[in-house]
Amino acid sequence: MDKLIFISNDDGYTAGGVCQLAEMMRELGDVFVVAPNGGRSGASMSITGHDPVRNTFISHEEGAPERGSLTVWACSGTPDDCAKMAFEKLLPRRPDLVLGGINHGDNCAVNAHYSGTMSIALEGCIKHVPSIAFSSGRIAKDADFGYMRQYVLDIARMVLRDGLPTGVCLNVNAPRTSNIKGMKICKMGMGDWHDEWVERDHPHGGKYYWIGGYYVPDDLNDEESDTWAFEHGYVAVTPLQLDMTAYETMDVLRNALGGGNEAKEDMK
Amino acid sequence: MDKLIFISNDDGYTAGGVCQLAEMMRELGDVFVVAPNGGRSGASMSITGHDPVRNTFISHEEGAPERGSLTVWACSGTPDDCAKMAFEKLLPRRPDLVLGGINHGDNCAVNAHYSGTMSIALEGCIKHVPSIAFSSGRIAKDADFGYMRQYVLDIARMVLRDGLPTGVCLNVNAPRTSNIKGMKICKMGMGDWHDEWVERDHPHGGKYYWIGGYYVPDDLNDEESDTWAFEHGYVAVTPLQLDMTAYETMDVLRNALGGGNEAKEDMK
Repeated sequence: MDKLIFISNDDGYTAGGVCQLAEMMRELGDVFVVAPNGGRSGASMSITGHDPVRNTFISHEEGAPERGSLTVWACSGTPDDCAKMAFEKLLPRRPDLVLGGINHGDNCAVNAHYSGTMSIALEGCIKHVPSIAFSSGRIAKDADFGYMRQYVLDIARMVLRDGLPTGVCLNVNAPRTSNIKGMKICKMGMGDWHDEWVERDHPHGGKYYWIGGYYVPDDLNDEESDTWAFEHGYVAVTPLQLDMTAYETMDVLRNALGGGNEAKEDMK
Repeated sequence: MDKLIFISNDDGYTAGGVCQLAEMMRELGDVFVVAPNGGRSGASMSITGHDPVRNTFISHEEGAPERGSLTVWACSGTPDDCAKMAFEKLLPRRPDLVLGGINHGDNCAVNAHYSGTMSIALEGCIKHVPSIAFSSGRIAKDADFGYMRQYVLDIARMVLRDGLPTGVCLNVNAPRTSNIKGMKICKMGMGDWHDEWVERDHPHGGKYYWIGGYYVPDDLNDEESDTWAFEHGYVAVTPLQLDMTAYETMDVLRNALGGGNEAKEDMK
């Protein structure tokens, strides 16, 4: 077994999703987990600037025939901190594959922006290692992700074999149902959250709020979107790129602001 | 004055950058600030899931001829929480413009992904309001951002007048120098951080780490990148889009994974 697979998540190192993903991946190589020491849902690509970050060694299991080793560390930082820490301080060598997940809850559509699981894949992408974020519509703590095992293995095998274009990673979302219809290559859906804050009265006076609400897709009927595929029983596979440039808007802005042409003349 | 301008940041409501931006914007309309109650650098688009969020009213100044009012709230959450809270609970109405900044420190290139200031603009974008993130190469707490005032006003005026395409916001980075050469419309640069963790010995044993290091651009000589423009004395104006889909990779994946075609046939 010569492949090294790095895994992190945003639900913490004890979460069922990361433990089950790690076991699946031992079929493909040695697995090294560095995951948060608690839940970090909605961490996006945040890093810990104002506090120190510590790592705790959790466990190591040797490999066996047809089965890679498994090493687990917990980290006090964000999911993205975990990835940065793994690359620079903990991994024995540069990994062949970076995985986030399996997230308890989907990260379809613009929600990928809020996702700590997705940040693992984006950080892997920054570091030029093929990267995938896996999420499932199953949120329960004791969720069994065995129903998506074959898809996870197929996608991971393909990426280990073929790689991914520079600056591109995958956002994979499996539906809640065990009755999966197949895979569908998708684009990122658009939408927004409604009633985002749940208000409570503080016993000492004043209000406080918990984030909540419900997501409303702009494009529920767009069969190309990951939301559509996810809601219709497909494993949505969405390639995402680090480069967020809106290339088509550049000329619009040059006309409106005059930037770019003068700059070029200026350089002559 | 009928325009309403919402501003937040990731350095906190007392930071010079947000205070100076608010004063600049009072030339264009009523200004409403909801910003974190402390520093949240590197917050990315994170939201607070595990803790309650509280708001504190700070101040209100009435408008005057040719000068809008200024209202300031502090929020215990992340920058993105501030935007979500403002839209749902604090703003008197839907704003005409959403601004992040002025950030003390640039958010060029892939660093936009880590930026809380950028998250304000992305959240505005999700909510279909024209949005801009302003950052400066000047990091000092007492930095004077007057040197970029005319650029900030020109860009904000243009966006108030023309809007921006749906799903597109602006990432504006002013160089450190007062000797600005002009504006340049750019693409997002690529690169990575090196030596990201500074190690310290804990007095009770073990190591802990502070995030740090230095950014190394992949494309320092690419004159289209925001990093190049910023480093060469231009105000880099980079249009960013919410939709991160790597469209060119979709067919590659369909061939490799077989997703999409079967799905279509399945639907017939």
